[in-house]
Amino acid sequence: MPDIIGHNYIGGARSAAGTVTLYSHDASSGEALPYPFYQATPGEVDAAAQAAAQAYPTFRNLSAERRAHFLEAIAAQLDALGSDFIELVTRETALPNARILGERGRTSGQLRLFAQVLRRGDFLAARIDRAQPDRQPLPRADIRQYRLGVGPVAVFGASNFPLAFSTAGGDTAAALAAGCPVVFKAHSGHMASAEQVADAIIRAAELTGMPKGVFNMIYGAGVGAALVKHPAIQAVGFTGSLKGGRALCDMAAARPQPIPVFAEMSSINPVLLLPQALALRGERIAAELAASVLLGCGQFCTKPGLVIGVRSPAFSAFTVHLAAQLAEQPPQTMLNAQTLASYHNGVTALLAHPGITHLSGQALQPRQAQPQLLRADASLLIEADPVLQEEVFGPATVLVEVADRYELLQALNGLHGQLTATLIGEPSDLQSHADVLPLLEQKVGRVLFNGYPTGVEVCDAMVHGGPYPATSDARGTSVGSLAIERFLRPVCYQNCPDELLPEALQNANPLGIARLVDGRSSRESL
Amino acid sequence: MPDIIGHNYIGGARSAAGTVTLYSHDASSGEALPYPFYQATPGEVDAAAQAAAQAYPTFRNLSAERRAHFLEAIAAQLDALGSDFIELVTRETALPNARILGERGRTSGQLRLFAQVLRRGDFLAARIDRAQPDRQPLPRADIRQYRLGVGPVAVFGASNFPLAFSTAGGDTAAALAAGCPVVFKAHSGHMASAEQVADAIIRAAELTGMPKGVFNMIYGAGVGAALVKHPAIQAVGFTGSLKGGRALCDMAAARPQPIPVFAEMSSINPVLLLPQALALRGERIAAELAASVLLGCGQFCTKPGLVIGVRSPAFSAFTVHLAAQLAEQPPQTMLNAQTLASYHNGVTALLAHPGITHLSGQALQPRQAQPQLLRADASLLIEADPVLQEEVFGPATVLVEVADRYELLQALNGLHGQLTATLIGEPSDLQSHADVLPLLEQKVGRVLFNGYPTGVEVCDAMVHGGPYPATSDARGTSVGSLAIERFLRPVCYQNCPDELLPEALQNANPLGIARLVDGRSSRESL
Repeated sequence: MPDIIGHNYIGGARSAAGTVTLYSHDASSGEALPYPFYQATPGEVDAAAQAAAQAYPTFRNLSAERRAHFLEAIAAQLDALGSDFIELVTRETALPNARILGERGRTSGQLRLFAQVLRRGDFLAARIDRAQPDRQPLPRADIRQYRLGVGPVAVFGASNFPLAFSTAGGDTAAALAAGCPVVFKAHSGHMASAEQVADAIIRAAELTGMPKGVFNMIYGAGVGAALVKHPAIQAVGFTGSLKGGRALCDMAAARPQPIPVFAEMSSINPVLLLPQALALRGERIAAELAASVLLGCGQFCTKPGLVIGVRSPAFSAFTVHLAAQLAEQPPQTMLNAQTLASYHNGVTALLAHPGITHLSGQALQPRQAQPQLLRADASLLIEADPVLQEEVFGPATVLVEVADRYELLQALNGLHGQLTATLIGEPSDLQSHADVLPLLEQKVGRVLFNGYPTGVEVCDAMVHGGPYPATSDARGTSVGSLAIERFLRPVCYQNCPDELLPEALQNANPLGIARLVDGRSSRESL
Repeated sequence: MPDIIGHNYIGGARSAAGTVTLYSHDASSGEALPYPFYQATPGEVDAAAQAAAQAYPTFRNLSAERRAHFLEAIAAQLDALGSDFIELVTRETALPNARILGERGRTSGQLRLFAQVLRRGDFLAARIDRAQPDRQPLPRADIRQYRLGVGPVAVFGASNFPLAFSTAGGDTAAALAAGCPVVFKAHSGHMASAEQVADAIIRAAELTGMPKGVFNMIYGAGVGAALVKHPAIQAVGFTGSLKGGRALCDMAAARPQPIPVFAEMSSINPVLLLPQALALRGERIAAELAASVLLGCGQFCTKPGLVIGVRSPAFSAFTVHLAAQLAEQPPQTMLNAQTLASYHNGVTALLAHPGITHLSGQALQPRQAQPQLLRADASLLIEADPVLQEEVFGPATVLVEVADRYELLQALNGLHGQLTATLIGEPSDLQSHADVLPLLEQKVGRVLFNGYPTGVEVCDAMVHGGPYPATSDARGTSVGSLAIERFLRPVCYQNCPDELLPEALQNANPLGIARLVDGRSSRESL
């Protein structure tokens, strides 16, 4: 049995000052696991935020190389966790073994990607405008700019990626890379897994000589609100529901000092099926799309929740194929009982709407999720009926048939912000629907062509973000190396002596990074 | 007399549907100018936002070169305005002729700087991760990212820079450069000047074939709230008071779709006088600092409002010199009657505090602003008393004497976020106060060495921003080319056919810009 004591992580030590305990559960049996977790007291929340604040001046000033070492050490510690860890995560989430192994690889890969970003140095965004002492009518001072971490960051992990979007996941990795200590609110759905990961982070921090308080973790219901309101916290990363994310945004905006919240929340990820593609390969598209809807029991932020096609015999045939695919599927166990309850509520709310009908899927079951295919009137999109706009988390999707291209554009216009939109089309389709892409660009963070939105590559060019309500701030991404930018701010130095400048801005360019010098990119020393 | 009709600018036409009229005033005499301005009706506010939304799809898709032409055309139109325009601005603001001429040069210079940024192409932040079809265990898709304008932007200009921070000022220039149409709320203090500038913008838009609605302007009290709440508006730029800025932030955060607000608000711009510098050149520093406090009647966001020194005979001598400098100054006319009233309220509130005493400055006068030098107990900073934290806009500054270096650090710790902080010191001072700079970096957007914060260079490396309450979002700047980033968001394309990609991301790299390709910066075609 793993060594799990359920104490909060505060400033490099463990703390269990409170008396309220919580338990996580075996996701398949519903049975409580034998580990009590001690809900952080208000004093412990404060201590965790203070510990992060104390670590900040030291941590932000460490060289990028030192921070890269730390991230790589976390990756190595994660990779070294044994099969008992994988089993524990599997038990808490009902996600299969192979998935957790793959997700661990992605999580350590993310940490290593940020280490690369730190060494590359472009995150520093160094800019130098040299003095022009003889300029008329006034001389120009020497001005140099780079970016530094905003301060301690509060991170709220997701239930559906217990590793990649949780304790040592993308938000934590991005914040640490930026030089921001983290206070992580352990997700109630996988607290034992979170503890094992936190242990790995703390071991890595000790091995690489990081300041105590660089990573803190607290357990408990309701402790997140106190964390977001804490004056030491300077930014928030969140992945979860629209309701939860919006509540945090509202709290953060109402603070005496408002802070930014990067919440990834609700997306229905429309998939547009264009006529030629449907005519040529409708049956294959139905099989591929069904696989994307069902992947991980539909528990992906990018699950295609809306499928739009223009009325045609090919679309009708496709509908029959997709209905058959979903009707045949066995039920699957979801992450936890609440997730299943929300899925049922979501499907029930859709079916209660007079404009929505049931196409296929066996009756909802009390313990597992049964895939569902629904059909909605195009008018619900065109009139922006709220019923279609909020994500139903789980293996359900909604078909919408539009009369023609004009109605298609109207339907797309009615969509709220999305993480993704997908075009399935032949070259001739894309040509004849050229006005669709500019519209989708305004609605989403990522446009896919002839692929499916589940599966998010962790790379420099990825955008896992998008206009509200997909996220609370379309200017960020929570996957990929650009995620670091959310936790950086620029600062500039005017006529600063060279030896006092950060290395990124010194004349000799000791980091060897690309800098914008007098309006031109250069790696040269000055 | 200039041709001023006071109608709102909506979608390339003029509109005066309302019956409420407003007047601007001769700042020196208080007399109303003979131009009625028609307060926008709720319908007109809606129409202005809708016009911007209609212009957005066309405008954002124009080439960067086309937008650069537009900005340069605005600059040319501004530069071509005659001496009657300069006189009009002078009359509305009481700012001297030479200052307005200089400010016009800065304003057209800003527009031309953004044209350069557009041609340079780094604002696009193009990133390409090429497909890896043979990667194991899963192939990698082709992912390409760039940035586009967020949508229509509402801009609120400042009273103190009727050109550079107003109608065609930095926020407008940055938003237009980003591809975002603007709805500008004309500042009540200089509506006639605003109309002349808006005419110049509209002429430039027509000459360069911009879509109607690319720039709109509305007049009136209270119309700003309706504008910020309008669903078409996607971001807000604001320069003004903490109270006004925070009110807009709160409104924007409470929208069904919250939007970002970039408000530049309140900064007291601490200046630290270090011992050796004071001993060597205390009298000169007193003269230079007085000039910075008095420049433009203290009506600068970066006016040094707090001067901190360590107790010493040199600091006492400096205090006498500074007091003498400020005692000798004649009163000056402020921007308008409300600004003078606020100045009086601010000085009176400071003097009402038992920890603050009057050092020099003649009695406050009913029509003009009299410079004032006050002294505050160090305990007010150390205990973070709110009385010292909010900017007093006008020619007043507060001296604080600390006992020693330890008390200096404590005092700096108590400071809120600032636009600037300044260190006046000899090399030996900077060495012996090495722990001051890391603390200041956490508090400000710009650190100056042996200079004065008034006078903000418009360049690539400038940061005119900083932690709250200096601004509402420390990740932005409202001066310099980085200001464009506030109005951009990333979008990515997965497996997009080359001919459908934006030029910035096409294989041939037709724009010839630097792109991050598979983790390396490159200008090559693929």
